[in-house]
Amino acid sequence: MAGTFVIAQGGGPTAVINQTLAGATLEIRKRHPGARVLGSLHGVRGIRDGNYVDLTDLPEEQLRLIAGTPGSALGSTRDKPDAAYCELILSGLKKVDAEAFIYIGGNDTAGTQQILSSAAGGSIAMVHAPKTIDNDLVENDHTPGFISAAEFVAGAFFSVDLDFRALPGIYVGIVMGRHAGFLTAASAAWQQDEASGPHLIYVPERAFDIPRFIDDVRATCDRHGRCVVAVSEGVSTADGKALVESLVPPERLERDQHGNVKLSGSDLTAALERALAEHLPGKRARVDAFGFLLRGYVGAISQTDAREAFEAGAFAVEVAGQGGGSVALQHDGSTVLKNVPLTAVAGKTRHMPDDFLHPQENRLSEAGHAYLKRLVPPKFKVGRPFV
Amino acid sequence: MAGTFVIAQGGGPTAVINQTLAGATLEIRKRHPGARVLGSLHGVRGIRDGNYVDLTDLPEEQLRLIAGTPGSALGSTRDKPDAAYCELILSGLKKVDAEAFIYIGGNDTAGTQQILSSAAGGSIAMVHAPKTIDNDLVENDHTPGFISAAEFVAGAFFSVDLDFRALPGIYVGIVMGRHAGFLTAASAAWQQDEASGPHLIYVPERAFDIPRFIDDVRATCDRHGRCVVAVSEGVSTADGKALVESLVPPERLERDQHGNVKLSGSDLTAALERALAEHLPGKRARVDAFGFLLRGYVGAISQTDAREAFEAGAFAVEVAGQGGGSVALQHDGSTVLKNVPLTAVAGKTRHMPDDFLHPQENRLSEAGHAYLKRLVPPKFKVGRPFV
Repeated sequence: MAGTFVIAQGGGPTAVINQTLAGATLEIRKRHPGARVLGSLHGVRGIRDGNYVDLTDLPEEQLRLIAGTPGSALGSTRDKPDAAYCELILSGLKKVDAEAFIYIGGNDTAGTQQILSSAAGGSIAMVHAPKTIDNDLVENDHTPGFISAAEFVAGAFFSVDLDFRALPGIYVGIVMGRHAGFLTAASAAWQQDEASGPHLIYVPERAFDIPRFIDDVRATCDRHGRCVVAVSEGVSTADGKALVESLVPPERLERDQHGNVKLSGSDLTAALERALAEHLPGKRARVDAFGFLLRGYVGAISQTDAREAFEAGAFAVEVAGQGGGSVALQHDGSTVLKNVPLTAVAGKTRHMPDDFLHPQENRLSEAGHAYLKRLVPPKFKVGRPFV
Repeated sequence: MAGTFVIAQGGGPTAVINQTLAGATLEIRKRHPGARVLGSLHGVRGIRDGNYVDLTDLPEEQLRLIAGTPGSALGSTRDKPDAAYCELILSGLKKVDAEAFIYIGGNDTAGTQQILSSAAGGSIAMVHAPKTIDNDLVENDHTPGFISAAEFVAGAFFSVDLDFRALPGIYVGIVMGRHAGFLTAASAAWQQDEASGPHLIYVPERAFDIPRFIDDVRATCDRHGRCVVAVSEGVSTADGKALVESLVPPERLERDQHGNVKLSGSDLTAALERALAEHLPGKRARVDAFGFLLRGYVGAISQTDAREAFEAGAFAVEVAGQGGGSVALQHDGSTVLKNVPLTAVAGKTRHMPDDFLHPQENRLSEAGHAYLKRLVPPKFKVGRPFV
């Protein structure tokens, strides 16, 4: 291949998605001298509109600096292309003589690549490089972006638990995660022992109901004198709908082009505040939604995550040479990169394995703790408080 | 002095308050071999109830580990002692033959020390060692705990701005700070240039009103295609009351023993969400309250802050030898420690100097930026995104 490689970034930014961009760009330059590397601005929009930045000759030093910078340096998009939009993308790719298109993103991004791949009929290699803090891609042991976000969440809960040891009360932290509880579970990665928080963990994989939540909190307060709780923003009721959907009047429900309901408003926060005030009156209680803080915090970039994200980008170039596919991070003693079919990943959601959760109680099992210990080992040496 | 030193921690925990505890303990052990060092559990409550941990012989290694751990290792309290409570504290101090009592905390804590000092009539040296993320102690250039919290806030806004560069919209981050805007202003510490966020900063020192806020946001979006905003939870309306007071029905307003209204609920978040949805419909807008994440995050402990907090503890022992007073961090080329009268600090609030703010616009002035640059210099080398 000595033609043009197009690279784009889709969906929510992460702390390390620029590592994947840099990894792919440098690998193309190494393997295919003479090839042109175009970065499409704001995902597939840039291809549709002819908006590119030329990365062919960007100094490596500059590219390495960008690699270490959170956010999506090319800009991103939530556009979900329909058939007509896909035609525009394909004709855009042809216009720049693209031989391969590497799209870095989550399962929606993989979905776009699958459609494009069918439409292109093999004339252009379509590659999906994984990225998501949600860790919800099938075929993957974990995904680039997850470990850094998990480290933020682990450190946040570790720190808040110390705060609430000093001034006891109830603390609820709401963590991003629409369908998969991995990131919320990461709250327990640096848990010291059973008496330390988070004492309770609620993930989308288990039905959530307020009375059970209140009972759990009350029992924890009785036992430990405080209660630190991690709740996924995507927790759902027994009917499988997001709890937020039952809290927000239909006319205020905001959806993206993928039909996903906006979960990041203050409705869940307010509902949990009200429930705690009503059912556990007089108890000091605070509910914080972590919101966007966790997904690209410059102070919590995991070096493992950064390295793997870079390598996933480089491997995407290998996958392009194989005609396309999806880069998957699998675990076999250490992380191994595989090329899996786009159809295996596109639009599918990986949930937390059921055995990561305690069968009855709202906390992790041994298996859940072991998974986190492998990916997010403790980073700070700390002492034991006297209270 | 070879009698007993009592140490306690009051008010909100910080990332480095245990450094002050360790600094004081080690200095006492060095200067006064044979003296006993008692840590009172949960502030003055421990003295009242006779609840202590004996630090006299705690291995230094263990103490150094605790020093590096966020939170208040002795536990804390928000108790505001009245005359009768103060009598109980004094008799508690006498019961353990205290020669000095070092109380680490903010201006409320200094207030307690002032009352105790008057009541003790010189028989026990009362020392206040400073601690507050709010940076609102008079006589101080800055306070232990502030720099670390400021670093968290600086990194958070720097990172979120990159996120919103990639997926444009309006982002509002609500930052702790009841009366002083220093911590909210710290959002701009790592701002790259005028086009980077935070584009707007609202602090308690300036009256806040929704129409002006909306106009500011609209103008910023027109200019930069996105808008990142930092708002103090303590922003007040023109009548000088906290905005939250006008948003929450009186029967739901929660106050601590110092009469301070609880600001950390979701009411301000919801009010700003509603205002943005109503006046700038169709624009992607997210409002996050940082809540408790910023005050003791293990991943954002500044080494300067840690060192100064330790030294403030050690200097508190010197102040005890001088009969008592308040430790102040002043600036004279570098940080210098001074003993100032308790009356000068107790119950007083230091506001951001007026010239730290632009006279008309809701952003910092050159002087404001210079202050932050001195205390919270950039910590990460980053690249420039393409969008």
